[in-house]
Amino acid sequence: MIGSRSRPPLRTDLSQITESIAAADADAFVAVGDRFDDDLRYLTRVAGSERTYALVVAPADDAAGRAVCCVSPEIRERAEREFVSGSRQSEATEGGDGDRTGDTGRPFRDGVAREVRTDRAGDHAGERAAAVVRDLCGGDGGDRTLLVPASIPHDAAVYLERAGNELASTDAVATARSRKTNAELDRLRRVQRAAAAGVARAEAVLAESEVADAAAVGGDGSDRRPALRWDGAVLTAERLRRAVNAALAAEGVGDAGDTTIDAGRSPTDHSHVGTTTLRPGETVVVGVSPRGPDGYRGDLTRTFVVDGDGGWERRASVAVEAAREVALGEVEPGVPIATVGGEAAAELAAYGFDPNAGPDGAGATGETVHGVGMSRYEAPSSGTDLRAGHVIAVETGVRDPTVGRVCLGDLVAVSDDGCELLAGHPLGITPETR
Amino acid sequence: MIGSRSRPPLRTDLSQITESIAAADADAFVAVGDRFDDDLRYLTRVAGSERTYALVVAPADDAAGRAVCCVSPEIRERAEREFVSGSRQSEATEGGDGDRTGDTGRPFRDGVAREVRTDRAGDHAGERAAAVVRDLCGGDGGDRTLLVPASIPHDAAVYLERAGNELASTDAVATARSRKTNAELDRLRRVQRAAAAGVARAEAVLAESEVADAAAVGGDGSDRRPALRWDGAVLTAERLRRAVNAALAAEGVGDAGDTTIDAGRSPTDHSHVGTTTLRPGETVVVGVSPRGPDGYRGDLTRTFVVDGDGGWERRASVAVEAAREVALGEVEPGVPIATVGGEAAAELAAYGFDPNAGPDGAGATGETVHGVGMSRYEAPSSGTDLRAGHVIAVETGVRDPTVGRVCLGDLVAVSDDGCELLAGHPLGITPETR
Repeated sequence: MIGSRSRPPLRTDLSQITESIAAADADAFVAVGDRFDDDLRYLTRVAGSERTYALVVAPADDAAGRAVCCVSPEIRERAEREFVSGSRQSEATEGGDGDRTGDTGRPFRDGVAREVRTDRAGDHAGERAAAVVRDLCGGDGGDRTLLVPASIPHDAAVYLERAGNELASTDAVATARSRKTNAELDRLRRVQRAAAAGVARAEAVLAESEVADAAAVGGDGSDRRPALRWDGAVLTAERLRRAVNAALAAEGVGDAGDTTIDAGRSPTDHSHVGTTTLRPGETVVVGVSPRGPDGYRGDLTRTFVVDGDGGWERRASVAVEAAREVALGEVEPGVPIATVGGEAAAELAAYGFDPNAGPDGAGATGETVHGVGMSRYEAPSSGTDLRAGHVIAVETGVRDPTVGRVCLGDLVAVSDDGCELLAGHPLGITPETR
Repeated sequence: MIGSRSRPPLRTDLSQITESIAAADADAFVAVGDRFDDDLRYLTRVAGSERTYALVVAPADDAAGRAVCCVSPEIRERAEREFVSGSRQSEATEGGDGDRTGDTGRPFRDGVAREVRTDRAGDHAGERAAAVVRDLCGGDGGDRTLLVPASIPHDAAVYLERAGNELASTDAVATARSRKTNAELDRLRRVQRAAAAGVARAEAVLAESEVADAAAVGGDGSDRRPALRWDGAVLTAERLRRAVNAALAAEGVGDAGDTTIDAGRSPTDHSHVGTTTLRPGETVVVGVSPRGPDGYRGDLTRTFVVDGDGGWERRASVAVEAAREVALGEVEPGVPIATVGGEAAAELAAYGFDPNAGPDGAGATGETVHGVGMSRYEAPSSGTDLRAGHVIAVETGVRDPTVGRVCLGDLVAVSDDGCELLAGHPLGITPETR
């Protein structure tokens, strides 16, 4: 369980941004977004703003840089705490060696002086950012270049351009986000432990379930197959999802709308109207990807079969476990991401599961290897090599559209010389009371 | 509890968009976004896409319009169900009178032919949308005008402009979203009932809590005030939040990171590290704003005091209840939104709570009246008049920085001749076991 003991707040080393500004010979960096903008949350550590807000980072004469966060007055106190004081407290606790002072707005370890502004709150965040750029960079514009994330809102971009700035998109934030600090790894471990508690809850519910014949289950009699019963009623995918999500909430993490219960041959139901009845002998793929209090995501997938007959799902399970082990064994710095999935696919093929089968054919379901952090999908992605500090989801699975699907997914941190599995859960396909 | 019985899927009347295109003498409408883009989810009803996706709506010769949703192949099946078949099923169940046929891609009641495309999946959604515009509108561009939401991602906007389109921003989506259909009201009622279950859980936990003196509580001895104990341990804001969120999950809704437990004088803690100990005699403001399975939001706030002494919080509670009643009594079509808050503030002033006090002074906390729907904050906002179909959050509160805060918040639908309170919870400040 994610303890209520406070850890030092996270802070982001903004020298990564000031270095990008210098490398691009630009004048400043600007990000604009809402509470769902993970780039902006990563950079500022401000959570939960309902209104669009903005960050401007620029070089400075008296510091390594200046960073101004423009928010609405309602969240000033919180923004001061999370963006400004958060950095100070993080610094004090984690041990800094920079020219830190105790005062708001003074430099921290990264040398960037942080400040929150709430003036001109009625204006669009893009206009407010343009005013801050003018203030920090001086002049009337006309020859300033601003680095911006490619997906900055268009209206904000237009305000910045009208104020005499030329925009150039940068992937500096994505790159910075892909390499986790120790403090971020700590958060990822914690949220993945909570994810494991969610999967454990699913396993416990399935282990407690009983097999009832169709007559006992009720319904319109059109489906005579036996069904699972739990806690006095038919166990549907939706009931299982709710039990998992309640367990996640009790751990202090949110389900982020990403808990999936994929039963038998049915496609994954993201729309939460899952009236699918869970049945003995069918595969039940439980996938959770909770969001922790600091915004970091877990990602864990396990497959269970109640009262299986040891047929297809047993062979599938053996193959997927082997492929998972091969995939995890490939994870270390310098390895192309494609290799991780490729080796797993080759192992599945050795077990007779065709890696080239499409989503509608029997065989491997296509390996998924992608970065996880503040977003469930972020850098690194295929086409790059693994580096120390990357955290990736490794998923291995096979399916037969006439039977079901078996999938195992874990979160792995790339270390200096290998990898660390973040939390986890036993791999067995038969649900057990633990 | 949100039943697992399936309701017909929601669908959005896209004739509101085709009419905006005609009114602006434009050629098409384009939206691009990710799963957090509530405009796009409202228009398409596609939930949970991890990748950026796009919608193009254009007039057509053989129908009232054509709508193409560009998604990645992984979610094709779901998008077909939610965007295309969802409309058909909704139509069939809710009763349509248009020239509907049973085939994918044919017109529904709104006369707009819907289609999902997954080609060019490797390209940016903005490029794919530009290709669809070329396909639907013909020609090489150069004089086409596209309506877009103002906050469309800048890179998507640049792709559209480079393809020879001029962009004009539209508020047609916000306007459409502000007027709820009966099917949307049904979803809002359901999620607000779940919100009420969350608040009820908080009240039950507080009612079950016991007052323990400082020695029994433990700690470093620096705070000698008595504290609340529940279920064998000190009751912190974070423990109460987790209990509420588990109750929300059991109801089938997500907490959306928006459950706040605001204790005594402490500011609202959104950062989820709430080690604040809850204490007898202190106000505990419980705010929930869950997100239901179709994306719609609830919004409910109640205030409790365990073992209060009948002092400030009792006077505050009486005033806030009276102000709430006055505010709700103002809600009907044609009334300016500012009037609702204004009348509540006047009532608070009559009870001696200065409506002009700022967030740092004692008095009214500033009335909050805003639209709620797929987003927690959406149209209508202050400056507009209420219209039938609007759903608004009405919050009334007072605070004294030396004591605490009392706040009541409800969700109200504007009807043809008044309003409907969506679900709710008793107003009493002393927690009771119900």
